[in-house]
Amino acid sequence: MSDTAVSTLTNHQFRLASRPVGLPTRDNWSASTEAVAEPGDGGVVLQTLALSLDPAMRGWMNEGRSYIPPVGIGEVMRASGVGRVIASKSAHFAVGDMVSAGFGVQQYVRLGADEFKRNGMVKIDLRMGSLTQWLNVLGMPGMTGYFGLMDVGQPQSGETLVVSGAAGAVGQTVGQVAKIKGCRVVGIAGGKAKCDWVVKELGFDACIDYKAGPGAVREGLKEHCPKGVDIYFDNVGGEILDTVLARINRKARIIICGAISQYNATTAIAGPKNYLSLLVNRARMEGIVVFDYADRYHLAVLEMAGYLKDGRMKSKEDVVEGIEHFPEALLKLFNGENFGKLVLQVADQ
Amino acid sequence: MSDTAVSTLTNHQFRLASRPVGLPTRDNWSASTEAVAEPGDGGVVLQTLALSLDPAMRGWMNEGRSYIPPVGIGEVMRASGVGRVIASKSAHFAVGDMVSAGFGVQQYVRLGADEFKRNGMVKIDLRMGSLTQWLNVLGMPGMTGYFGLMDVGQPQSGETLVVSGAAGAVGQTVGQVAKIKGCRVVGIAGGKAKCDWVVKELGFDACIDYKAGPGAVREGLKEHCPKGVDIYFDNVGGEILDTVLARINRKARIIICGAISQYNATTAIAGPKNYLSLLVNRARMEGIVVFDYADRYHLAVLEMAGYLKDGRMKSKEDVVEGIEHFPEALLKLFNGENFGKLVLQVADQ
Repeated sequence: MSDTAVSTLTNHQFRLASRPVGLPTRDNWSASTEAVAEPGDGGVVLQTLALSLDPAMRGWMNEGRSYIPPVGIGEVMRASGVGRVIASKSAHFAVGDMVSAGFGVQQYVRLGADEFKRNGMVKIDLRMGSLTQWLNVLGMPGMTGYFGLMDVGQPQSGETLVVSGAAGAVGQTVGQVAKIKGCRVVGIAGGKAKCDWVVKELGFDACIDYKAGPGAVREGLKEHCPKGVDIYFDNVGGEILDTVLARINRKARIIICGAISQYNATTAIAGPKNYLSLLVNRARMEGIVVFDYADRYHLAVLEMAGYLKDGRMKSKEDVVEGIEHFPEALLKLFNGENFGKLVLQVADQ
Repeated sequence: MSDTAVSTLTNHQFRLASRPVGLPTRDNWSASTEAVAEPGDGGVVLQTLALSLDPAMRGWMNEGRSYIPPVGIGEVMRASGVGRVIASKSAHFAVGDMVSAGFGVQQYVRLGADEFKRNGMVKIDLRMGSLTQWLNVLGMPGMTGYFGLMDVGQPQSGETLVVSGAAGAVGQTVGQVAKIKGCRVVGIAGGKAKCDWVVKELGFDACIDYKAGPGAVREGLKEHCPKGVDIYFDNVGGEILDTVLARINRKARIIICGAISQYNATTAIAGPKNYLSLLVNRARMEGIVVFDYADRYHLAVLEMAGYLKDGRMKSKEDVVEGIEHFPEALLKLFNGENFGKLVLQVADQ
C-alpha cells in the first residue's frame, strides 16, 4: 500500500470512557473513528493485525500509581500487538515489515520516530514463530514467564515448580521452560480440559484443577509435590497463593507476576495470610515487571524460537476475531474462559 | 566450684505445662526443681547467669511445623543464655569458662559432649562485650539483625532503611549497622521514650512513634522517608508492614524477621494486603532464620565488638532479675513494655 492510500482509511478504536468498579462493562468503553494521517518525518503508519489481551490491562484502567501510568479517560486503550508497516518515512522500517509494538485497541496507529522506543516497536521474523506466537511465547507473556522463571525463580534441575494460570500465556511458557531446565512441573488451572491439555500436550508432570472442589489445590499439592515446592510462579494470588505458601521448601522462590483473582476486587485485596512461611522457610517472594528485561528479550526469543522449532515447546492461542468484540473478549480473561493466550485478531495477515 | 560441689545444688526450672491460646499465662508454666548431676564423660555442667527472652519463644510454645520443633509439654522451656562452666569433664571447656549456649529456663544445665553443637555452645570473651551484650548485639538478636540486614537487605550507602521494633534487640543492631554502612535510618517504635533514645543515643535519623495516633506511621514515613524506602526490616508484621509496603522503592528489599504483632493472634494472621506493591516495584520480601549463619557468627561478632569498642555502636538491655519472674518478664515483649533487649538475670556474675 502506498503512502497516498493511507489517507483513505478509517481507524476504528476503543477508548476508555470511565474507570470500572469490579469487572469492566461495555459502558467503560467508547467506540470512536478517526481518519488516518500520513506518517510524519521519520515516522510510520502501522496496520494492526492482532492484539494481545492481557490481565495487566485491567490494572491500567485504574487510577493511581503503578509500574506504568494509567490509561487516561478518553484515550485509546493501551494494548500491545503485531502488525504491518503500511506507510513509512523511516529509514529503519520499510512498508511491508512486520512489527511488534504498542498499537492500542485500534486498527491503525501512526507513530513518530520519537515514539518507536516508548512503544517498544521492533521487527519480528515470522520464520521464528507465527503472528500469534509473537504475542504469546515470543511476546510479552513469553518474556514475562521466561525472565520471571529464570531470573527470580533460578530453577535447578530436580526442583519442583508450581505455576498457576498454567494454561494461560505466561503459565504455558513458565511450565515448558521449567521442564526443559529439568524441573518437576505441576500446573494449577481451571477445569479438566485445561488440565488435560497442560499435561498431555505441554508435558507438565501434573495439573491441579482448582475448580474440582474445596481442598482440591491443597490435596493436589500434597499428591503431586511430594518433595514440597521449590519455585512457585504466581499469576493468581488469593487463596491459591496461601495454599502454596503452606507447602514451600527451604529457600523457595515465589515469583509474583500477577494476581488475577484480585484485579476486579471491589474490597481490599486479600493478603497472603501464610506469608510467615517465608520466614520459617527462609524463602523469598519477589515481584517482576517484564519491561525491566527489554534489553535481553532478543536472547529469550532466540532460545524459545529454537524450542518451538525442535518441538520441545508448544503454544496455544485463543483467537477472537474482530476488533468490535474487544469488550467481551477481555472479560474471558477474568472468568477463566480463555484457553491459551487470548488474542484479538483485528485483520487478516 | 569443684565437681563434688555440683551434686549439692538444686536446679530451679520452668517447664511448659500447656500450650497457650493468645498471650501466655502463669498456668502455661510449671515450676520444678531437680538435683544437679555430675557431668558425664566429655560433658559439662553450666550455671546460668542470664537468659535471653525473645519473641521467637512464643512460636516455640505452639504445636506444629516451624524452623525448629516446638517445646514439648513437660519440657524445660527453651532459652539461650550466657553462663559459666562449673564442672567439666571436657577437654575443650574448663571450669570458669564463660559460654553462650541453649541453657533453657533453669539455673543449671548439664550437657553431654554430643549436645554442645546442638545447643550452640561457644566460649565468649567478656573483653569483647559485657555478659548482657553477649545476649544482645553480640548474641542471637545481634546476629539476626546483622545477617538479615547484610545478606538479605544488602544496604547501599545513601539508601533509606526503615526498621520496626527499633528499640528492641534486633532493631538496635539493624539501625546502627545500617548507619555505619551509610544508610538513612528511620526507626518505628512504641512511645516517645523509645523514639527519643533511638534518635539521640543510637543516632537514627528519625523514629516514628506508632502509638502517636492513627496514621502516625503513614505520615511519619512520608515525612522522614522523602525518597521512599529501599530496605524494610520487619519485626512486627500487621498494619505497619502494610503501611511500609505502600512506600517502598523499586527493587526494595523487605526482610521478614518476625511478626510480633501476630504471635499471640487467636484468629488467622493478617496477611499483607499491599503485597502487590512487590510486583509494581519489582521488590523482594524474604525471610531469614539466624541459625543459617552460624558459621559466620564469629565474623559478625568481631565486627560489632569493634564498633562497641570505638563507640560507633551502643546497646541497651532491659534486665529483669530473678528466674522466678520469668513468666511476667516474657510478657513485656508482647505489650511493648521492654525497652532494649530483654534479659532475665538468673545469677550474679
